[in-house]
Amino acid sequence: MRLYQWLSATMASSMVFVLPMRTRGSLSKCFPKFDNCFQRKLGINTAASRTDRLIKKDEVEPKNGRKTFYTVEEERIEQAQRSVLISCPAKTNEKKFLKYLSRHGDINKYFFYESYGMYAVVEFVHKESLTSLLNGTAIPCINHEATMPFKSRLLSLRNTGSVDQSAPQCQSQTTIPINDLIQRLSNENSIDHQITSLTEMYQLTEENVCLRYLVCSLLKDIAAAYFPECKIRPFGSSVNGFGKLGCDLDMFLDLDDISGRNVKKPKAGLSLEYQTKRAASERAATQSILSVIGECVDQFGPGCVGVQKILQARCPLVRFAHQPSGFQCDLTANNRVAMKSSELLYLYGELDHRVRCLVFSVRCWARAHSITSSIPGAWITNFSLTVMVLFFLQRRTVPILPTLDHLKDLAGPLDKCVIEGNDCTFVSDFTKIPLRDNTETLEQLLQEFFEFYGTFAFSRMSINIRKGREQSKSEVSPLNIQNPFDAALNVSKNVNGTQLERFVGLCRESAWMLQQREFNVPHSQTRAATRDRAPWGLAALLLPSVSQAAGVKVRKNRKREPASERIKSLLESLKNRDDKTTGNGTGGNS
Amino acid sequence: MRLYQWLSATMASSMVFVLPMRTRGSLSKCFPKFDNCFQRKLGINTAASRTDRLIKKDEVEPKNGRKTFYTVEEERIEQAQRSVLISCPAKTNEKKFLKYLSRHGDINKYFFYESYGMYAVVEFVHKESLTSLLNGTAIPCINHEATMPFKSRLLSLRNTGSVDQSAPQCQSQTTIPINDLIQRLSNENSIDHQITSLTEMYQLTEENVCLRYLVCSLLKDIAAAYFPECKIRPFGSSVNGFGKLGCDLDMFLDLDDISGRNVKKPKAGLSLEYQTKRAASERAATQSILSVIGECVDQFGPGCVGVQKILQARCPLVRFAHQPSGFQCDLTANNRVAMKSSELLYLYGELDHRVRCLVFSVRCWARAHSITSSIPGAWITNFSLTVMVLFFLQRRTVPILPTLDHLKDLAGPLDKCVIEGNDCTFVSDFTKIPLRDNTETLEQLLQEFFEFYGTFAFSRMSINIRKGREQSKSEVSPLNIQNPFDAALNVSKNVNGTQLERFVGLCRESAWMLQQREFNVPHSQTRAATRDRAPWGLAALLLPSVSQAAGVKVRKNRKREPASERIKSLLESLKNRDDKTTGNGTGGNS
Repeated sequence: MRLYQWLSATMASSMVFVLPMRTRGSLSKCFPKFDNCFQRKLGINTAASRTDRLIKKDEVEPKNGRKTFYTVEEERIEQAQRSVLISCPAKTNEKKFLKYLSRHGDINKYFFYESYGMYAVVEFVHKESLTSLLNGTAIPCINHEATMPFKSRLLSLRNTGSVDQSAPQCQSQTTIPINDLIQRLSNENSIDHQITSLTEMYQLTEENVCLRYLVCSLLKDIAAAYFPECKIRPFGSSVNGFGKLGCDLDMFLDLDDISGRNVKKPKAGLSLEYQTKRAASERAATQSILSVIGECVDQFGPGCVGVQKILQARCPLVRFAHQPSGFQCDLTANNRVAMKSSELLYLYGELDHRVRCLVFSVRCWARAHSITSSIPGAWITNFSLTVMVLFFLQRRTVPILPTLDHLKDLAGPLDKCVIEGNDCTFVSDFTKIPLRDNTETLEQLLQEFFEFYGTFAFSRMSINIRKGREQSKSEVSPLNIQNPFDAALNVSKNVNGTQLERFVGLCRESAWMLQQREFNVPHSQTRAATRDRAPWGLAALLLPSVSQAAGVKVRKNRKREPASERIKSLLESLKNRDDKTTGNGTGGNS
Repeated sequence: MRLYQWLSATMASSMVFVLPMRTRGSLSKCFPKFDNCFQRKLGINTAASRTDRLIKKDEVEPKNGRKTFYTVEEERIEQAQRSVLISCPAKTNEKKFLKYLSRHGDINKYFFYESYGMYAVVEFVHKESLTSLLNGTAIPCINHEATMPFKSRLLSLRNTGSVDQSAPQCQSQTTIPINDLIQRLSNENSIDHQITSLTEMYQLTEENVCLRYLVCSLLKDIAAAYFPECKIRPFGSSVNGFGKLGCDLDMFLDLDDISGRNVKKPKAGLSLEYQTKRAASERAATQSILSVIGECVDQFGPGCVGVQKILQARCPLVRFAHQPSGFQCDLTANNRVAMKSSELLYLYGELDHRVRCLVFSVRCWARAHSITSSIPGAWITNFSLTVMVLFFLQRRTVPILPTLDHLKDLAGPLDKCVIEGNDCTFVSDFTKIPLRDNTETLEQLLQEFFEFYGTFAFSRMSINIRKGREQSKSEVSPLNIQNPFDAALNVSKNVNGTQLERFVGLCRESAWMLQQREFNVPHSQTRAATRDRAPWGLAALLLPSVSQAAGVKVRKNRKREPASERIKSLLESLKNRDDKTTGNGTGGNS
């Protein structure tokens, strides 16, 4: 299944309403026309053709319907500029709300969600509608307090009339708890279904992506105050196709269109230049710029809390929580390689639907076993894990993914890209990439992934997706994953021996489990109270392993115990649990 | 002489060029038409009629040609928005420069001046010309350094062609040194001429006022980034008519048009409000706003150096030096009373030409004797001195100035103004103010001023320009000058006994001097080398008195010595000096 198919599937069951309104006041007439709605919904991608005109001809949507990274980005940015974020009372009458807003122009899309209160994202058809809306919006007047008279596209809806009793349906912007996930996966009928189901539940929804671009757009309004031509572009998991609901929002302040770097020498005679302040280095300039924007976000940015200026970091950043969206945000500048990495991951993810599925499953499994963590440390990062999955898919007998060197060979003249001396060129047009005919199932691939890394020669070899084959290690770090754009750098330099050992151990344990019939077919019995099956397949892999549950002290003692022994005791404990549940018929919540 | 007459007189001798250009490329054809130029020059005030349309009908120019404070302000702000500040190489060919700029549209006015290098202020006829100019302006590209890509209307002219040998004439933006002033005053033929001459040399020139409004306009561009509807308005000596060349530029960030204070309650039903950050108090909000703007000025503001955020002061402010203009700048917010005080002083200064002349003379005299200082302390301020002159002019047998209470009685409904509970209402329309027929000369008034304050009952009475008469003191400060807008406040609370005593002593000394024939008529002899006269009249009053020259220690010993004794020795020293000069014929620079 391709991404756009995924999105269609997700949207079909979502709370996104696409309004067929064309003229003001036509709301009630059009509401019943659901056929019409549905056509419009399917037409979202084609409706974006307006944006395409802004994009270089060579970058437009490839023939097979998949859009390049930058086409998607341009469309999303343009949509966000036509959108507004509105805090609403919990009891808001949806029909009245839409009628009130549509006085300013036709609405293209909208949805409601909850995050410390109810919010609505509303996307107008025309940008001018926003101007009209904001003209009719007031600065609040509060007794005994002063307000910062800073105007943004984050608004509050007041209802001074009769209180409405209805409440609109809200979109969830977070993943379900791990125990609920395990239960839902157990009810699937194959490991393949489990893997796609996990991916559907975890990956970013269409609405969540809209919200991410909207938050960037709101922040752009602040930065554009000083740098009118700047862009704020999300990067990392928000856009690389591997983001999980609730993941951080990494943003990149792009000032390239304003910097003097690419200025032509003026002709002889008089010419004018802007008088500007100087900084000792690019880094110092970045620090100053982030310092001012951070100060503004802190003092004026509505809903922005906990602002930290982390300017001495290798890559200086401003960190803050955006309450209305619930996103933890990091704003950086001059972070071009990270942007290119996001594009590469997006491309790999788009090439074959199994890529994202496998990455989501492996990441979820790693998180469940504390192989990864939300805080930095000596453990494996999600990025490293993703590269390991890509590498594994390049190493299949019939490779599922091409090497980065191959993608570079396919690149056109416009794809050429060198950042800080490193060649980051690779093809952006999907149609140019020939794919091999690999028919392995997701179940097979997951099983093989654990086998592959359970037996990988980490002590001697490094992982290199540019070449698509392991290479002799040139450094001493336990885990060596070469940076795709700078082979001399190891993206997993932080990982220590203990963490790598845990990873390998869990790979072996999981590989073994998937070979056992106890785990790799659905349990036939269901628990009486809930009609839920006991965990199996991928769900079983997410359960805490006995070795872990017993804690560090026990694990240390058991260090030399063979994995199979540990698995046996896990099996026993599961059996007992199932017996108890089905036996007394009341243990649904055990 | 009225202010506009002053300005015309100043401009006739100044470097302001008013171009008769109407179409592009017509520069050379029009240059010889000086008749045309002159008509345009006289037409400056009428050309501003475009601005008048923006102003409430009741505020337009009164019939007698004098403009209200706010009319002048609106016109100046609008002019500044059409202007640009350009750093030029010292050898800039004026004709080429104008030809280059006029490609973007017709130029209304321009002038050159020096301040750490040569600068030009250029005012276009249309604002759109600026957009065109800035579109063709580049961010500089500097090796080994990074620039802040922040665009403002402060530009640099580069000349990569042949080096020009000519240099345009520059306007001075500073006062002449005190010794040169003394010499020039001595060459006048009456004390009245001396006083008007000093005023002409010291008061702000047309160009300097333009430059001040332009600096405000540049700063407004920064503040408008967050608060599009804000204004930055100069106040104090830059606009009250009593500013001396080189005085500080006090600016007021006016956010009143955006604050939620005056918002009407919305009708029943749905309404939208901006979501804003809250501050504990107006003061806290002001501090936050100034903090962010200060940060931006510090990091990005070209030419802005030595930025200090003085946020804990009674009236929080951001202080910085603006190198291209040479101004020391203070930016405050929520400082409405200071604005009203400026308007009041402007009004008093406009009512009779003798007001400004007397204030300039007294201020210059006070500064020469260190009665006032550029740093804060226990001495009299320029504002206090000005109020003392106003009060003195209200107390003439035939009063030259009306009382503030009278100005309040004449106020129309639109003049009503209450700030923080204080009634600051007074008439703004000059035509409504009846003036008495006082014909005293400047010489008489200066003489009487020193007599008046040499014998004032400071120990018992306070100075009150609202009532126009002294009142019994209710507090113990040596000098009590009641705040015009809050009678309970003493604007000279800082002045200690010693400083008041020095002021009174110098008033007596000066009054006595002006009665002596030695001082009150021009010296008939001129110094051979320079054909300059020895100091007399106002010039003599500016010479250090013997008591001062001898220093603090001597002054302490001479505390009880009668003023006349000191004057006698001063006379002696002057005589000796004159004899020496005229005697040897070579002491022109003694």
